[in-house]
Amino acid sequence: MHYFVTGCAGFIGSNLVDHLLKNGHQVTGYDNFSSGQPQFLSQAQSSLYFNLIKGDLLDLDKLTSSMVSVDFVFHLAANADVRFGTQHPRKDLEQNIVATHNVLEAMRAQGVRRIAFSSTGSIYGETEIIPTPENAPFPIQTSLYGASKLAAEGLIEAYCEGFGYQGFIFRFVSILGERYTHGHVFDFYKQLLDHPDHLEVLGDGQQRKSYLYIQDCLVAMQVAIEKSTTKVNRYNLGTNEYCQVKNSIGWICEHLDIQPEIQFQGGERGWIGDNPFIFLDCTKIRSLGWQPKLSIREGVIQTLQYLQQNQWVLESRA
Amino acid sequence: MHYFVTGCAGFIGSNLVDHLLKNGHQVTGYDNFSSGQPQFLSQAQSSLYFNLIKGDLLDLDKLTSSMVSVDFVFHLAANADVRFGTQHPRKDLEQNIVATHNVLEAMRAQGVRRIAFSSTGSIYGETEIIPTPENAPFPIQTSLYGASKLAAEGLIEAYCEGFGYQGFIFRFVSILGERYTHGHVFDFYKQLLDHPDHLEVLGDGQQRKSYLYIQDCLVAMQVAIEKSTTKVNRYNLGTNEYCQVKNSIGWICEHLDIQPEIQFQGGERGWIGDNPFIFLDCTKIRSLGWQPKLSIREGVIQTLQYLQQNQWVLESRA
Repeated sequence: MHYFVTGCAGFIGSNLVDHLLKNGHQVTGYDNFSSGQPQFLSQAQSSLYFNLIKGDLLDLDKLTSSMVSVDFVFHLAANADVRFGTQHPRKDLEQNIVATHNVLEAMRAQGVRRIAFSSTGSIYGETEIIPTPENAPFPIQTSLYGASKLAAEGLIEAYCEGFGYQGFIFRFVSILGERYTHGHVFDFYKQLLDHPDHLEVLGDGQQRKSYLYIQDCLVAMQVAIEKSTTKVNRYNLGTNEYCQVKNSIGWICEHLDIQPEIQFQGGERGWIGDNPFIFLDCTKIRSLGWQPKLSIREGVIQTLQYLQQNQWVLESRA
Repeated sequence: MHYFVTGCAGFIGSNLVDHLLKNGHQVTGYDNFSSGQPQFLSQAQSSLYFNLIKGDLLDLDKLTSSMVSVDFVFHLAANADVRFGTQHPRKDLEQNIVATHNVLEAMRAQGVRRIAFSSTGSIYGETEIIPTPENAPFPIQTSLYGASKLAAEGLIEAYCEGFGYQGFIFRFVSILGERYTHGHVFDFYKQLLDHPDHLEVLGDGQQRKSYLYIQDCLVAMQVAIEKSTTKVNRYNLGTNEYCQVKNSIGWICEHLDIQPEIQFQGGERGWIGDNPFIFLDCTKIRSLGWQPKLSIREGVIQTLQYLQQNQWVLESRA
C-alpha cells in the first residue's frame, strides 16, 4: 500500500511514518515544517520507500500533484493549539477546515478514496455523558479547535456519502510518548528544568484528563482500518482510565525526584474553552480486540524519559 | 434594536427584514444579490429605518465596516443548494463556513455579541431517532450542505464560549411561503406550468419531508430570542407533522385542478445525500408557548398562490 501522511514531521505523523515503513508500506510524507521537526524523520529518510515533500496544505496544486498513485491518506496535519485558539481564530479555520477540504479535493482529483483523520475528544465539549461514547448527544462546541475538528469530520463524512470515500475518524485523547512536543507534561517538565523548586499550574489541578501512549494509538488505528468495512467509521481512542492534573504532577515529580512548591492558578478550567473532564468510552475500538499496553502513568514516565534524553526538543519549541 | 441581516434579499431574509421593521426596529441588510431579489426589498426600501448594503460576506473589510452600531446579527446568507453540492464542493466551504467565520470576526471587531443563525434539519443526516430532538445522537453528515451548516454551528458555539457571545441556532425544516424561490414545490409548479400533462419526480415519491410556513418561522425565532437567556440556544423549527412528496404533489394538482401523469424516477432518495425522512422534534420551541398557525398543506397552498401571483419569480430563477 502507498500511504500519504499529512503532518508527517509532527509528533504523531512521524511515528506513524516509521510504523507504516516498518510494516512494509510505501509512504509519501507532506509537511510545511511550521511545527514539524526534520529530525523526527531521520530514520524514515534512510528508507527507499519514503518520499518527503515540503509543502503547505493550502497550496492545493502542490498537494494534488503530490498525491499521485496514493492508496490511502492519513490526514494528521493541524493547528493543534487548543489553548490559544481565541488569540488567532483564523488559524483553526485555515489550517484545520480549509486544509481538510483541500485534502479531500486533492484525493478526488487523484482518485484516492480512503482517508483516516485525527480528530479529538475535545469535540464532545462539556458533555454530560462520561465516559463519552462516539454517538453521545449532539455536543455543543466549547473551543475553536474542537469546532474546527468537528467541521473537518463533517466534511469527510459528506465526501464519503457524496463521492464514495471510506472515512476513518479517530477522536484522540491527549497522546503521549516519543517525540511529544506540546501539552502539559511538556510544559511542566520545561518549567521544572528552569526552576525545580516551584511549578505553576493553570486551573486548580483537579481537571480530569485522559492520555494514550503513541504506539498504542498507532496500533489502534491500524486495527480499525484493517477490520472496519463501513463507509464512515468513528472511533474514540484512549485508555479506560483518566487522571487528574495533580496526579500527573505527582508522577513527574516522583520520577524527577524533586519536591517543588506547586502554585495552582485556580479555577475549574485551565483556560477559556478548557474542558475540566475528558474521558472517552472506548468500547468500540476495544471490541475489535485492541487494548493499550501502557497505562497513563507509564505513558507519562515514557514521555519524560524521552524528553530527558532529547532536550533539543524543548529548545526547538522555546 | 438595530439588527443586521445577512442574505437580506433572500426568501427568509427579506421576510425577516419586513417583520423586524414592522416591529419598530432599525435594520441594516447585507446581500451580494447572487440569488437575492431586489424586488423582495421594495417594501423595506420605503422605510427610513432600513439601510441596504450590497456586499459579499467574503469581503471582511466591507462586512466589518457595515456592522457599526449593530446590536444583533441574523446570519441567513448561505449557499442553500443541497442537491447540487457535489458539483461544486468549494461553494459550501466558502459561502457557508468561511462566510460565517467572517460574520463572527466582523462582530468581534465591532463589539456585537448576539447572533442568530439559520441552520438546517439536514445536519441530523440519516438519524435513527425520529422525530429528532436537538440533542439527538452525534450525527453523521450525509451532504456537503449539512456538513457546512454543522461547521458554522460549531464556530458560533466556540465564539459564544471564547468571546462571550450569545448564540441562537435555528435548525429549520424546509420553509415555505411568500417569496419562496427554490425547493420541490417550486420545481413541481414550474414543471406543471411548462407541461400540465406530466410531472417528473426525483425518487419514489415516498420521501417524508417537513415544512414550515415563513411567518410561523419568523415568530418562532422572535419568541426564542426574547425568552432564551443561556449562552448557546439550539432550536428545531418545524410543525408537528410531516408529509410524503406524493402528498404534496396531490395538494398541488388539486389546487391547480390538473391530473398529470406522474413519472417517479425511483429510489428511496431523490439525489445523493437526499434524506428520505426529515421530521424534527419541536418540543423545545413549543415549550416557550409558540405554535405554528398553518399546517403543511396550508403552507403549500399559500406558496402556490404566491407563485401564481408572482410568476416573475419563476422566470428570475430560470
